[in-house]
Amino acid sequence: MDAEIIAVGSELLTPNRQETNSLYLTQKLNALGIEVRFKTIVGDNAEHLAQVFRAALGRSRLIFLTGGLGPTEDDLNRQVVAEVLGRPLHEVPEIRRRIEERFARFGRTMSENNARQALVPEGAEWLENKLGTAPGLWISHQSVAVVLLPGPPKELEAMFEATCAPRLASLATGECLRSRVYKTVGLAESEVDQRIAPLYKNYQNPRTTILATPGVIEVHLQARATNDVEANELLDQLGDRIEAALGEYVFSSGGESLEEVVGMYLVMRQKTVAVAESCTGGLLSERLTRVPGSSNYFLGGMVCYSNELKATLAGVPADLITEHGAVSLAVAQAMAEGVRKRTGASLGIGITGVAGPGGGTPEKPVGLVFIALADENGTQIREFRFPGDRERVRHWATQLALEAVRRRLRD
Amino acid sequence: MDAEIIAVGSELLTPNRQETNSLYLTQKLNALGIEVRFKTIVGDNAEHLAQVFRAALGRSRLIFLTGGLGPTEDDLNRQVVAEVLGRPLHEVPEIRRRIEERFARFGRTMSENNARQALVPEGAEWLENKLGTAPGLWISHQSVAVVLLPGPPKELEAMFEATCAPRLASLATGECLRSRVYKTVGLAESEVDQRIAPLYKNYQNPRTTILATPGVIEVHLQARATNDVEANELLDQLGDRIEAALGEYVFSSGGESLEEVVGMYLVMRQKTVAVAESCTGGLLSERLTRVPGSSNYFLGGMVCYSNELKATLAGVPADLITEHGAVSLAVAQAMAEGVRKRTGASLGIGITGVAGPGGGTPEKPVGLVFIALADENGTQIREFRFPGDRERVRHWATQLALEAVRRRLRD
Repeated sequence: MDAEIIAVGSELLTPNRQETNSLYLTQKLNALGIEVRFKTIVGDNAEHLAQVFRAALGRSRLIFLTGGLGPTEDDLNRQVVAEVLGRPLHEVPEIRRRIEERFARFGRTMSENNARQALVPEGAEWLENKLGTAPGLWISHQSVAVVLLPGPPKELEAMFEATCAPRLASLATGECLRSRVYKTVGLAESEVDQRIAPLYKNYQNPRTTILATPGVIEVHLQARATNDVEANELLDQLGDRIEAALGEYVFSSGGESLEEVVGMYLVMRQKTVAVAESCTGGLLSERLTRVPGSSNYFLGGMVCYSNELKATLAGVPADLITEHGAVSLAVAQAMAEGVRKRTGASLGIGITGVAGPGGGTPEKPVGLVFIALADENGTQIREFRFPGDRERVRHWATQLALEAVRRRLRD
Repeated sequence: MDAEIIAVGSELLTPNRQETNSLYLTQKLNALGIEVRFKTIVGDNAEHLAQVFRAALGRSRLIFLTGGLGPTEDDLNRQVVAEVLGRPLHEVPEIRRRIEERFARFGRTMSENNARQALVPEGAEWLENKLGTAPGLWISHQSVAVVLLPGPPKELEAMFEATCAPRLASLATGECLRSRVYKTVGLAESEVDQRIAPLYKNYQNPRTTILATPGVIEVHLQARATNDVEANELLDQLGDRIEAALGEYVFSSGGESLEEVVGMYLVMRQKTVAVAESCTGGLLSERLTRVPGSSNYFLGGMVCYSNELKATLAGVPADLITEHGAVSLAVAQAMAEGVRKRTGASLGIGITGVAGPGGGTPEKPVGLVFIALADENGTQIREFRFPGDRERVRHWATQLALEAVRRRLRD
């Protein structure tokens, strides 16, 4: 079964307001094997809402409308849905009584505009709202279920749990949706696709999507089956082949971030790490320490922004900087080795580069970054040219530093 | 003029992925007096997309499609839009050449699936993508403008600024929406509202919204007028009164982040800063160095995660740690003073605390953080207890460290 969500509220069409109820609903629906195919956001406008609701009726068998159930003039969902479905509204005394009681409990008198919340379209069931005044509505209309839920997330979630989840479980066909995400670093989106398209093209189920995020290309698989075991078998079947085709570029298939994977390897190998970074300004340390428990393997970091600090903190010989420049292979190496020595860590990382927007020269342009990784066997140094702005260069540099650690510890 | 946004991508219909491009677009469009009336999210499915796009064509004169322009099989926007509009696709050699060049610049060969990004519907203009391979498209179709933008936010934003904003400015009707944001730190949302509600309640125009983001409460004003000057006068009228009511808590009214404001003060006062941080793991250095040009005032940072490094790097006397514990007022002070002395910076900041989730004790619970600020007149130390998880504690700690610097330099 497929569903669609219509979120109603003019505030959801402003730049500062994110719609989030649909994420909660999607999670709950997916767990019941129900996929969300369309989400629409529309303002408090009867004509627009009617248009969007009509389109949904023409294509979906399960429609959720969120918001627009309150007591004020701009709460239109109840009226618009009743009109489009051709069902007159009747006041339900039981609801009115409950709203009045709720007001009384907080020592207030119900203002009359609240009474509209007691109106229910003919033939509809109303859903109790334990945390607010506006009840929800469940309307079985021909072969479609139309569900109206209140906008405040707490009210919506409590109502869904108590009233919708049980109804949906009995509606649901026993189907089950499960997904898996393979994360890769080091391949372009098109390279990932080229490797795996010959595999996933043979499968309608699981369905495959490729997603590019900064520094990570993700392969999403979604399987549909009658139960959990079957769904996981389907995921394994295609997933194992995809994982093999992407090989060493895959760093996670269980949702972990790259810094979490690096952390797991450090714990597993009983190694520690320390960082000397320049252009990334602390971001590498910050990413490593985002992970709870990172104090078990992360000793510390130095952000050597000035040349003086590269010398005094990380122990980079001053003449090396004079000779090669602060952004150089030699300085990256000295930073990695220096921080390793000074902290006693098993692994030392050194990063120096030009993050931009200023500071670039023809020989050393914005995006040029040297990354060095030192351990007891020596130091590996790589030169990169990252595209993009300051933030992106910094992110990429930390991404490839983490990836260097992952590969070192993996082998 | 009104607009509508269609965001395309199956990942946007999963529980874990928030659609955000439409927020950026809405902000930019509002600034041009264009309101967004519908937002739709649809998966990588040609039939669904065609359905949604047809509905949009029937009601909107300005339609943005985001995502779905990449090189892979599931990138369908170009094809679907061309088909619905009845415009055949032709390869544009200039685009192909640019994509090949882009690959060459990073030392790679273009894989053939990238070529589909060079396809352009008949009569469409293509929009240059400075940060990626996929160009955008601008199609004037009868009285409707259809604009296809890439999904990655950086690419979309750069492309919109460079190519769409100028085109839209000449399309727009002369009504003008202008907004202003006052950012505050140190007051709760309800305290902000209590101070300014008596002021903004008297104004329908500008419209006032209060928005709570982690560590910052923002007051958004939006004015509608026939021209820029009038809109700004309306913003000044209410804005000046709001700013006065919020006083020293306002750190920005021009969109600047707290780290940018701190940077401006450091430049203005010709001061430098250095940081020794423990529980924030590099985040304070990272935030300070996010700002382009921060190398003019940021000397460096030390991430002293282990006790040994607190001593060897920041010069905290080992017996101080033994006596008071690593998370203590005395150690924060020694870190701030130590880093100031070792780097020669005008200002030294020390942060030590328990970010969680582990490591808390009844005396020193998760969320306890000490922040010290040292300068030539001495050291100010404050103790905080932040609510929330690891990420939030770390963010709050850096927020209040930056705020301490702002207040010190402001006076």
